[in-house]
Amino acid sequence: MTDLLLTGIGSLTTNDGPPIAGAVVAIADGIVTYAGKEGDAPSQGAGRRIDCEERAVIPGFVDAHTHLVFAGDRSDEFARRLSGEAYASIAAAGGGILSTVAATRSVPDEELFELARARALRMLAAGTTTLEVKSGYGLDLDTERRLLEVGRRLGEELPVTVKTTLLGAHAVPPEFATDREGYIDLLTEEMIPALCELADYCDVFVEQGVFEVEEARRIFTVAGRYGLRPRVHACQLSPGGGAKLAAELGAASADHLDHATSEDAAALAGADVAAVLLPGASYTLGGRHAPARMLWDAGCTVALATDCNPGTSYLEGMGLVISLAVVEMGLTPEEALWASTRGGALSLGLDDRGLLVPGARADIVVLDAPHPTHIPYRPATNLVWRVVSGGKVAVPD
Amino acid sequence: MTDLLLTGIGSLTTNDGPPIAGAVVAIADGIVTYAGKEGDAPSQGAGRRIDCEERAVIPGFVDAHTHLVFAGDRSDEFARRLSGEAYASIAAAGGGILSTVAATRSVPDEELFELARARALRMLAAGTTTLEVKSGYGLDLDTERRLLEVGRRLGEELPVTVKTTLLGAHAVPPEFATDREGYIDLLTEEMIPALCELADYCDVFVEQGVFEVEEARRIFTVAGRYGLRPRVHACQLSPGGGAKLAAELGAASADHLDHATSEDAAALAGADVAAVLLPGASYTLGGRHAPARMLWDAGCTVALATDCNPGTSYLEGMGLVISLAVVEMGLTPEEALWASTRGGALSLGLDDRGLLVPGARADIVVLDAPHPTHIPYRPATNLVWRVVSGGKVAVPD
Repeated sequence: MTDLLLTGIGSLTTNDGPPIAGAVVAIADGIVTYAGKEGDAPSQGAGRRIDCEERAVIPGFVDAHTHLVFAGDRSDEFARRLSGEAYASIAAAGGGILSTVAATRSVPDEELFELARARALRMLAAGTTTLEVKSGYGLDLDTERRLLEVGRRLGEELPVTVKTTLLGAHAVPPEFATDREGYIDLLTEEMIPALCELADYCDVFVEQGVFEVEEARRIFTVAGRYGLRPRVHACQLSPGGGAKLAAELGAASADHLDHATSEDAAALAGADVAAVLLPGASYTLGGRHAPARMLWDAGCTVALATDCNPGTSYLEGMGLVISLAVVEMGLTPEEALWASTRGGALSLGLDDRGLLVPGARADIVVLDAPHPTHIPYRPATNLVWRVVSGGKVAVPD
Repeated sequence: MTDLLLTGIGSLTTNDGPPIAGAVVAIADGIVTYAGKEGDAPSQGAGRRIDCEERAVIPGFVDAHTHLVFAGDRSDEFARRLSGEAYASIAAAGGGILSTVAATRSVPDEELFELARARALRMLAAGTTTLEVKSGYGLDLDTERRLLEVGRRLGEELPVTVKTTLLGAHAVPPEFATDREGYIDLLTEEMIPALCELADYCDVFVEQGVFEVEEARRIFTVAGRYGLRPRVHACQLSPGGGAKLAAELGAASADHLDHATSEDAAALAGADVAAVLLPGASYTLGGRHAPARMLWDAGCTVALATDCNPGTSYLEGMGLVISLAVVEMGLTPEEALWASTRGGALSLGLDDRGLLVPGARADIVVLDAPHPTHIPYRPATNLVWRVVSGGKVAVPD
């Protein structure tokens, strides 16, 4: 028995072959049972029908890199940085990641949840049905726990799937400013053991002046013993060893990669590490974009994500990310759409989504446009008309 | 008697002095009667109150350059151009402006209106309360008339103010491909005289290979006799005489200006010609952005607009435009906001809007954010919470 039937689809992107015109998608028990030509569809009753009136249908977006649990407001810092003020000066005046840490530590649980919930709902309204949520604005055991709990709770209470990542190694917190070894000890000896049940992955911001490769290796090695596979902030602001470390460790993903080399690309492709690209951060910071074309052509599994965070990429939806990937990074619209759906899913080990074939989870977006190329073509408009999450209509709810 | 009272405003941008915290705006008969500190507000009853709960309030956006009346779909052309195909090749294969002309000529009036209406409603939902609408996809007397009529009808039926511009000189239509003089004769001898009552302005696309400066001068001279002041597509794809012509003729605006020089800026400032900048087109085309900082510092009245059109800038809202102006063009968030409201209004000769002071038209946007800097800071989110147009709540309607 079909629960939901989408008919009159003008262009169906399955990520399993070319787009199909004149298509239908049938859903039962939250799973796609048919996705293809209307004429070939098995005849069956349906609990609910939605006539898509020639609109385009695509898999729900999988946003594989977000920092969406935070408090505080850094819009003023955004303006000051663009006016030329150096990050070091902003940080010295109380800005930067540590200002978000201070704000996040200070708000009650419920407020933290409500802030994150509002962001996740805006993402859902923009077509995101699966998202990764990192901690990293706590940097102490108690607050990191709260951030991961908020992430998990988002997945329980909203029609989105959430994967959580422990990013205790986002920065060294102020109380350890003169004792970074002490913080890494805390992370490896207390935080990872205590929080491994709340997290699916462990992440380290590998960058000059943040965490060195050898520090990251030490953290990831401990995390691995507790079942947390690495995701790595790598080669964002400068070239470095983050991508090669990710390949060496068989990480789930290496993220950012703005300064990745062809050697990095070969290493990632060879080790089957997904390349999660975050053009919103490059856009916001005025920095270089990741070599998406090169990474794709090297055989990497490329994913696109928002990097939603209050400092460097406050993007709450994938539309502008796809536009930037196409306009600024040289991916085709088809590649960018794949990277925003199937690529993200593969980077999170979720083989059941990011494609619309029988057996896939029914996470589906209907666009108010005849073709998905309208997403990069019309970057200022949220083109989402309906969102189906796990077989249920989630937008409008 | 106050018809509508906005209370609890966290940050009020009046464009007449610095932002005001803890503000209220009172409206009667579609006009602002008070905008300032809550404590200083005259005590008065109100027909309707909206508690803005610390949200930011700004003037409604004035989008002073759009081509939003068109039919057809050029998303495929967008993808082909980004994959490296030359515009000439695309045009030879039936793409480019003339493909929109063909599609636009072929659809019935009501369909053309519905397409434009849907776009205008998306713009309104993104905070635009005044927009300029150009013709230019008809290029014959009958279709140019239909385009202008659609523009005027949008202003009559929707809660937006519309100013219309006759852009018969957008391209030479195919039936005059070997007789451009004949087309300019048609424009000056028939179209301008017949359509001057439907238009507020006349525009010419002054560019190498499109219309030369001398041709534009001839067209504008005739238009002036019929009461149509110039708006000029100038210096978009290459340096040229468009900006200086605009200054010489005392045009209302020179638009694009991506290749404007410091001499152009001085001429525009000296002649009080508004500089209407269109970063969406530069973004979409991968071209250079207009020298916004230089134009501003030269004393030009700078306006920002979407350039909404199917070929080079399919943007249906000002948020991304403001973001691009701040991130890519060097305007501050305050300057970009001014240019998107007051700057646009001045470029259209509408002195009653783009600011929130007693006597101004009550075109107002309440943002779902505490400060308007969130507009460029969060470029993927439509932050509009409420729109008031002419004193009436238009969004949500």
